[in-house]
Amino acid sequence: MRPVKPFRPDWSERPPKKGTFRAIFKYGDPNTFKHPGDQWVTMLKDEFGMTDEDFKSRRGEGREKVALDRPGRLSADQINAFADIVGRENITTDDYQRARYAYGKTVEEMMELGQGIIADVADLVVHPRHKDDVRRIIRYCSGEKIPVYVFSGGSSVNLGLRPVRGGITLVMTTHMNRFLELNETNQTARVQPGIFGPAYETALNQAPERFSATRRYTGGHFPQSFEFSTVGGWVVTLGSGQASTYYGDAADLVISQEYVTPAGHFKTHDYPAAATGPKVNDIMKGSEGTFGVLVEVTLKVFRYRPENRRYFSFMFPSWKAAVMASREIVQGEFGRPAVYRISDPEETDRGLKLYGIPSIVDLFLKKRGFNPMQRCLCLGTVEGDRDFTRLVKRRIRQIARRYRAFYLGGYGSRKWEKTRFTEPYMREDLHDFGITIDTLETSVTWDHLHALHRGVRMYIKRRPRTVCMTHASHFYPQGTNLYFIFIGRFDGVDDYRAFQAGVIDQIQKHGGSLSHHHGIGRMIAPWMTDYLGEEQMAVLRALKKHFDPDNIMNPGGQLGLDLNPARRGNQIRKST
Amino acid sequence: MRPVKPFRPDWSERPPKKGTFRAIFKYGDPNTFKHPGDQWVTMLKDEFGMTDEDFKSRRGEGREKVALDRPGRLSADQINAFADIVGRENITTDDYQRARYAYGKTVEEMMELGQGIIADVADLVVHPRHKDDVRRIIRYCSGEKIPVYVFSGGSSVNLGLRPVRGGITLVMTTHMNRFLELNETNQTARVQPGIFGPAYETALNQAPERFSATRRYTGGHFPQSFEFSTVGGWVVTLGSGQASTYYGDAADLVISQEYVTPAGHFKTHDYPAAATGPKVNDIMKGSEGTFGVLVEVTLKVFRYRPENRRYFSFMFPSWKAAVMASREIVQGEFGRPAVYRISDPEETDRGLKLYGIPSIVDLFLKKRGFNPMQRCLCLGTVEGDRDFTRLVKRRIRQIARRYRAFYLGGYGSRKWEKTRFTEPYMREDLHDFGITIDTLETSVTWDHLHALHRGVRMYIKRRPRTVCMTHASHFYPQGTNLYFIFIGRFDGVDDYRAFQAGVIDQIQKHGGSLSHHHGIGRMIAPWMTDYLGEEQMAVLRALKKHFDPDNIMNPGGQLGLDLNPARRGNQIRKST
Repeated sequence: MRPVKPFRPDWSERPPKKGTFRAIFKYGDPNTFKHPGDQWVTMLKDEFGMTDEDFKSRRGEGREKVALDRPGRLSADQINAFADIVGRENITTDDYQRARYAYGKTVEEMMELGQGIIADVADLVVHPRHKDDVRRIIRYCSGEKIPVYVFSGGSSVNLGLRPVRGGITLVMTTHMNRFLELNETNQTARVQPGIFGPAYETALNQAPERFSATRRYTGGHFPQSFEFSTVGGWVVTLGSGQASTYYGDAADLVISQEYVTPAGHFKTHDYPAAATGPKVNDIMKGSEGTFGVLVEVTLKVFRYRPENRRYFSFMFPSWKAAVMASREIVQGEFGRPAVYRISDPEETDRGLKLYGIPSIVDLFLKKRGFNPMQRCLCLGTVEGDRDFTRLVKRRIRQIARRYRAFYLGGYGSRKWEKTRFTEPYMREDLHDFGITIDTLETSVTWDHLHALHRGVRMYIKRRPRTVCMTHASHFYPQGTNLYFIFIGRFDGVDDYRAFQAGVIDQIQKHGGSLSHHHGIGRMIAPWMTDYLGEEQMAVLRALKKHFDPDNIMNPGGQLGLDLNPARRGNQIRKST
Repeated sequence: MRPVKPFRPDWSERPPKKGTFRAIFKYGDPNTFKHPGDQWVTMLKDEFGMTDEDFKSRRGEGREKVALDRPGRLSADQINAFADIVGRENITTDDYQRARYAYGKTVEEMMELGQGIIADVADLVVHPRHKDDVRRIIRYCSGEKIPVYVFSGGSSVNLGLRPVRGGITLVMTTHMNRFLELNETNQTARVQPGIFGPAYETALNQAPERFSATRRYTGGHFPQSFEFSTVGGWVVTLGSGQASTYYGDAADLVISQEYVTPAGHFKTHDYPAAATGPKVNDIMKGSEGTFGVLVEVTLKVFRYRPENRRYFSFMFPSWKAAVMASREIVQGEFGRPAVYRISDPEETDRGLKLYGIPSIVDLFLKKRGFNPMQRCLCLGTVEGDRDFTRLVKRRIRQIARRYRAFYLGGYGSRKWEKTRFTEPYMREDLHDFGITIDTLETSVTWDHLHALHRGVRMYIKRRPRTVCMTHASHFYPQGTNLYFIFIGRFDGVDDYRAFQAGVIDQIQKHGGSLSHHHGIGRMIAPWMTDYLGEEQMAVLRALKKHFDPDNIMNPGGQLGLDLNPARRGNQIRKST
């Protein structure tokens, strides 16, 4: 029997003090917290054999002030040159600032920061005011061979902005965060790269008030990091939003881009299609800061009609049935859902427990043959024209029924929608008590989905006391993604890294891509040559050499472009 | 009054003899003819002041046998080396074969061939049997610095396969024309590049009989050249089919590609999406033979359900109304039509006359305010799921009504569908009597559409006695294409080329892309640097240098990669 008043760990509600390690790694807003619920604590105790005692002492919280003791390697002349370009108020060599803009949101970064360990930092932080600043900065850095890193939202989960060679970090969110133009005729928006998700989406939603537009619009792009990631980041890392099954991935949304590179400054054309040779607009997508700096981007926008949105959720009797129905839905050519997610049996059962399913419903489902560790939850929404959303939802219900799914109404999807951006807040709470939660994601064609799911799960579950929850949440007629969430206790950062490398190995071995939407960064870079093959890596290296002959743009491992090709896979992954 | 029995020119029904110039330039099947109807003759007389007398003497019909008098420049050793690779039966130095595989279907090629003029030819024609042959050929040519051209369907309308540096031409349709694999789970088809449209589509339509598949499929790609173009050609030139508004352009259909290049042989991944850096699959699209040889391609396929197809046609009161309604339709997010076309006033009126509109209907339309040289015809179809096609058609009708269009039922679209591949057959008939019909096409964003249409038309119509008919036939939320058809009498090929160059200038000047779906080839190449800008041309040249350091792949102007950048626009266009 559960006690009447369950034990509640002393989850921290202390906002991290300015200048501390924790201020760097805490997710999202410094004053916002979202703690694991009681059912989480029950699960942690059950899974990891933890007792109330284990929730008394905290591991590295990173409450100390950051002090680097690492003087920058730029000369006074060089620093003055940057001050001349952007103004002295827009550069800093402050220890905390240098550290803050050197970090993304990987687990290994959190682990090290919690222990007061700072890895690589830039020598100087620079806040460009506009694209002309960026052009002058890149020209200067080319002449002086100063490495250039770009920090926008800072939500990278693969060490994508780590300044391993020092130099400067450009912060895009300080000034270059403006919504420049809404073109209603073409249904496009032109923005600076440092605009955050909410500012972008709000401007579009409020287009009549803001731009005297005739309609409201939406960007259609809602990654989990939406509140703390930027449009520029979405584009250069090939991100994907939660409604991508309908709206497309970031790469699909991009109409044109403007870049400053060591090899020149250019803007691609705005044509919706053209047969004019290989497209530079495509070549730049996913370049992750290694070719140049994105200074403007024009994206497709869509009509904003939340009144037409429809919600649905189902319980499928099995993963196999859920996958088959989903494939049928996305190949059916009646229009596609916007959000569409299926959870595997472990995620379904843990989800039902963690987010509270009334026991009467659970009992009912079991009676109907929807058994624990077999049944699979499906959530989704439909957007677009009113009659279109009605048709799509009806067809989805018909197909789900054919695969013996039980319709659960819209409640589950509405509930999911409310919390869809805030889940990451829990990771510091868990971290404080020695529990690590992390994710890896991949894309896969339908015919390899089950082997990949089984293979990766087998590896993760072979580790004692490790939770593995999986969902597919971005659907295409030719396949989907798999998103693996794992929770475990690790013996420090090297232990964790070794485990994580093993998961990446398994993804690759079982036919998954190295990433569906998180990108490559430095974390997954060592697998790139095996993944692409020497010939295709050579293509990327040729482009790199063209744009950046002196290797000053995000140098030091990004995308694997300047890694020694003899060192592959997890051989290269080690403690910093 | 029209005479009871109208004058009929003596249109040729003599199939070109084997080995003749005409056998090279005649469109399509040698034994198939489609002559301009009586209304055409009336138009030609009216427009060009032609009399019955003008239809008595023919200009250069090219009935002579091709004789080159140009020995190949390959040594006996080199020719033997190719024979060793593919077998002696798969190479030839025959004059006619060398000429035949050097030609596409531009008007200037027809004009010159009609006069017995042969421009550039390869030294040797090679028919590779499989991708391993191609690999060995490219390796050998790299060592010997022998230029390599690729001939597949031969429907290029921009001199895209002209062997200006001699060397060899690879003919892909002889052996490398197989349908390799249908993957029903992923809904993809893997084929060799030399498979023609009908063979590809028929294999998919007959999937149950051919592959024991559970369903019938369609490739969704139907360019006007469908019967005489190949899947490989569609991909490397960025083609677009008549139903692209629904199915997407060739570039959208490509899942993965396998290439043999001087820098190596590789196949890209089959993932429907991935965030793993810039995509080599995208980089190769549109490379027009300059990077390497496409040896296999995997494409998306779709469910084939012709029973769900719905037809519609409308008359809009004006071009402005037609454009506004079309934009509303494609931005409406209720699903898109498959075929969707709007004709401008000149095309509408000429079309009504040329293809016969009952005078009662014409009278009725005029009475309702649909006036000649204002009214615009719209044709289309809807494909996909049954209820989806019903919804899309209903919405299209609602929107068209809002823009005061008159619904004309499905007859016009069905009639168009029947003849949609055979229009090009008329060009030799017209050519024989000194009339030139040709097209140029471009893409444009909605906000530049009217200026582009006006600007290009003004240039064309400024030329006395020149017909200009325009339609838009590929629609995107962000814009469309414009397809200009012009008919005139030209004083030889240089006169024609100068006029054509002027049209390209006007397209560029008024904000159109250099091509929506015909590609660049050598014909439009001189405009590329102005179009892309030096910085983006440099990106393409860097890729070219990587894949093909010795410039043996389709060298001599293709895509403008190896043109002297100082020579731009029509300065470089001159008689061969």
